[in-house]
Amino acid sequence: MSYQQISGGVTAPRGFLAGSAYCGIKASNTGRPDIALIYSPYPTVAGGTFTTNKVKAAPVRISAVNLRAPDVRAIVANSGNANACTGVGGIETAKRMTRAAAAALGLKDKQVMVCSTGRIGVPLPIEKMEATIAQMPEALGPEGSQAAAEAIMTSDTYAKSIAVEFEIDGKRVRIGGIAKGAGMIDPNMATMLCFVTTDAVIEKQVLQQALSVSVEQSFNRITIDGDMSTNDSVIILANGQAENPTLVSPSPQLDTFQRALDHVTQSLARLIVEDGEGVTKFVEVHVNGAASFSDARRAAEAVAKSTLTKCAWFGGDPNWGRIMDAIGYSGAKMREELVDIYYDGVVAVKGGVASSTPFSKLQEIVAAKRFTITIDLHLGSAEYTVYTTDLSTDYVTLNMGE
Amino acid sequence: MSYQQISGGVTAPRGFLAGSAYCGIKASNTGRPDIALIYSPYPTVAGGTFTTNKVKAAPVRISAVNLRAPDVRAIVANSGNANACTGVGGIETAKRMTRAAAAALGLKDKQVMVCSTGRIGVPLPIEKMEATIAQMPEALGPEGSQAAAEAIMTSDTYAKSIAVEFEIDGKRVRIGGIAKGAGMIDPNMATMLCFVTTDAVIEKQVLQQALSVSVEQSFNRITIDGDMSTNDSVIILANGQAENPTLVSPSPQLDTFQRALDHVTQSLARLIVEDGEGVTKFVEVHVNGAASFSDARRAAEAVAKSTLTKCAWFGGDPNWGRIMDAIGYSGAKMREELVDIYYDGVVAVKGGVASSTPFSKLQEIVAAKRFTITIDLHLGSAEYTVYTTDLSTDYVTLNMGE
Repeated sequence: MSYQQISGGVTAPRGFLAGSAYCGIKASNTGRPDIALIYSPYPTVAGGTFTTNKVKAAPVRISAVNLRAPDVRAIVANSGNANACTGVGGIETAKRMTRAAAAALGLKDKQVMVCSTGRIGVPLPIEKMEATIAQMPEALGPEGSQAAAEAIMTSDTYAKSIAVEFEIDGKRVRIGGIAKGAGMIDPNMATMLCFVTTDAVIEKQVLQQALSVSVEQSFNRITIDGDMSTNDSVIILANGQAENPTLVSPSPQLDTFQRALDHVTQSLARLIVEDGEGVTKFVEVHVNGAASFSDARRAAEAVAKSTLTKCAWFGGDPNWGRIMDAIGYSGAKMREELVDIYYDGVVAVKGGVASSTPFSKLQEIVAAKRFTITIDLHLGSAEYTVYTTDLSTDYVTLNMGE
Repeated sequence: MSYQQISGGVTAPRGFLAGSAYCGIKASNTGRPDIALIYSPYPTVAGGTFTTNKVKAAPVRISAVNLRAPDVRAIVANSGNANACTGVGGIETAKRMTRAAAAALGLKDKQVMVCSTGRIGVPLPIEKMEATIAQMPEALGPEGSQAAAEAIMTSDTYAKSIAVEFEIDGKRVRIGGIAKGAGMIDPNMATMLCFVTTDAVIEKQVLQQALSVSVEQSFNRITIDGDMSTNDSVIILANGQAENPTLVSPSPQLDTFQRALDHVTQSLARLIVEDGEGVTKFVEVHVNGAASFSDARRAAEAVAKSTLTKCAWFGGDPNWGRIMDAIGYSGAKMREELVDIYYDGVVAVKGGVASSTPFSKLQEIVAAKRFTITIDLHLGSAEYTVYTTDLSTDYVTLNMGE
């Protein structure tokens, strides 16, 4: 392992401050902080990836533009309201959030990234938020990561945070991240927000590329309910305080950075899945032997999203027939008589039919809180993995009303 | 209306017999008949459409071949076991089902269509079934439709049946149908079986074309859980006992036949949705103003299949934000600021943002057991409709185990 895990989340990297405040954005809010602020007093380069949903929340539109600015210094984010489907007024509201944070921190508006998460279609109480944000610099601190992580939670049951430290050319470099998830989680982003900071010295273009690669291997591989959100955002800020020689591409140093970043994003992605709404099981669906990458992905995603496979897992029923069924309609190239399926390495299906493994053995595996389904299509060498969950009665209950 | 509804299901058309028998296919079976037989002593022409899932149950493979035979006379179908993912042995078993029915009725094997529905991956108890099928001619009768409809039920809570009568060139013509559904229901067929009979005189090719058109407007437009089954089959038999002049294409007489057939398939499709597993609401999702037919379909299917919209409906929450979200990720061409959404004709979203309709008014609509969501994309004139349901805690509970 070329990195070690440390504490401190987004404030683990040197020179980052974070904090939160309570504004009362949601009518039903019970005093829990609902605005987070992350800030670097030092110049940064920034990277970001956003939802591919054609319905994009106002803050996503503003952040995508501000990402082009040369020196992004802050991220302001609220929970309790998505500021999505709010029209021209919503765009203005998102801009006012950046303006309020910029004024409080002595920045230009475009140096601030903005994110929102919560219910769609409801206007934000922007006057109240402006007043709150104006006071937030007081709340910022070098140990404020946990407060920020808690302020972006919606139906999350715990705050998600991680940080790692590693060495590049004799300098200690750190990467830290916080995230929220819980619902509307699907490959290609979800209602998930993830903020990553690093004190590495790295060029903007190299940072963006590293982030894109990392997101593809983490947040784009998770699914809870198959619904892709309007607000997904992953943002990374690098402020160069580690004073390592600038990371260039390709280089062994960048590989080291990439591995550490991948660990951060994958850890947060896993935490999001494990803490998904009503989730009782964490399931890794691995497809190999596919004729192409896109076949592997289609098959894995169809299995990972199937309502019926997920209900069966919730009930501890191995039901590999539903897995065969999902592969069959996935659109992936497949030949039924070639398919093998394993549960935690134990063969359940061999050549498209039941193996001799006793059903009770498979039931034992599916009774656990975590297990892996491996599907070998025996048509090629492409593979893909999706991290998914069961579908529980609690998920339905949680999503019956706002 | 050019047709009138009558009773009698598949035995309403002259010269068709039907019946059922109890075999005990499922270990947990409690004496409910589980094999259905439909038979025409008169020569017939046949049509059929089958699942597009690449994993096809053995009976689907055999029926697709036998459909090419010139004079199909019978359909034998069992519930409680899908005979899917059962390998070469499963193919042999499906053939033995046709052989047993053919022997009992004095037919050739290929004059028999075969269908199965139930759990995937379990061998059928074929010896026991052969013994049962051998006795089934005794059970056949001109009023046996209801018995056959009941024998193909799985998690259905009631038997689904309909028949209509109409006039062609002075002759009374009848079409009757039975169906089963309940789970794994998705556009492009589902674990649904539907058997239609008619006494019309019609050529095989014209009959197949009429059936394909009809299925496209009915069974291919319904979704309960988004999972497409391995066993879906719609089979039609026409025995010519109405003695009408042969239906040719195109002709006003064929149009009359088509309308009546569409009524039969659409009625059965609706019954399948309404009786879906754990269903508490029947929702019609209508998209219009789409740039193309495929855009309209994508948008409608995304909304109709979204786990989150379906959970919200279950809870009586209009939550149009989740509908916007689903349209956004559907892949359909759309511009957020042009979208209007109506609940039973009441505007909820105008130009991509909340309308002035009070939320309580929308709640009132969604509280009902049936309502229609109309989405206008304002980009063209293409439209599409999908019939769907809510997603309830009962659905999850029903699908937790076998």
